[in-house]
Amino acid sequence: MSAGTDCVFCAIVRGDLPSERVSEDERAIAFMDINPVTDGHLLVVPRTHSRDLVEVEEADLVAVTLMARRLAGRAQERLGADGVNLLNCCGESAWQTVFHFHLHVIPRFGGQQRRDALGAPWVPTPGSVQVIAEAAARLRD
Amino acid sequence: MSAGTDCVFCAIVRGDLPSERVSEDERAIAFMDINPVTDGHLLVVPRTHSRDLVEVEEADLVAVTLMARRLAGRAQERLGADGVNLLNCCGESAWQTVFHFHLHVIPRFGGQQRRDALGAPWVPTPGSVQVIAEAAARLRD
Repeated sequence: MSAGTDCVFCAIVRGDLPSERVSEDERAIAFMDINPVTDGHLLVVPRTHSRDLVEVEEADLVAVTLMARRLAGRAQERLGADGVNLLNCCGESAWQTVFHFHLHVIPRFGGQQRRDALGAPWVPTPGSVQVIAEAAARLRD
Repeated sequence: MSAGTDCVFCAIVRGDLPSERVSEDERAIAFMDINPVTDGHLLVVPRTHSRDLVEVEEADLVAVTLMARRLAGRAQERLGADGVNLLNCCGESAWQTVFHFHLHVIPRFGGQQRRDALGAPWVPTPGSVQVIAEAAARLRD
């Protein structure tokens, strides 16, 4: 999907779709997720359309990351969050549903079911040393 | 925890603990997660110790993010991943277990249970418009 009338995040950036906008600069904007997984869940996107993490311009990726970090600190100061997750989903297999690059900022509230019902996505379990070494060999510089 | 003999990621950076290292530059290094949630799961950390997303120096955060993005692309090219998640866990409530800032790079393999058994951490569900607006008002610039 290219930048245009089909991309809901481009429409939000343009102001053609309503959003609860919380921060903006020349390159990035942040607005509330309308399907929040916790209290204060928001999204940070570049103004310029790009499909995903692999395609986004470096300067936009940096701007989005720094805005997400500022808002993570703010969620702790202003919402009383005692933790924050940043999440990017790149590709359908990684749960991406809107194909305009975005970072989730997910404030966390330990022990407060009403504000935070997010279950752990995995239980860390030791992997096969050999399988890990094989993947490393293929990924290495 | 400060930089020192107690931090396992500092020990990995120094080379005092073994790791399957896959990439490094002046500021950041990437190595395989020994508790992989999917095939090729790795971690990117700054060489300099910082506790978490809120504390990490801006230049280190940028270096780690750009290295993670490069490795996300590489996981698609070299491991055949069809998606990637980037995840940061800041604070115990957000599942942080090692208190040296790090980004997870989690290659995804749609429909391949053997390589990717990661369940969706949440099902997007519309939130209360009022609750969302209240959080936005507190987070806004």
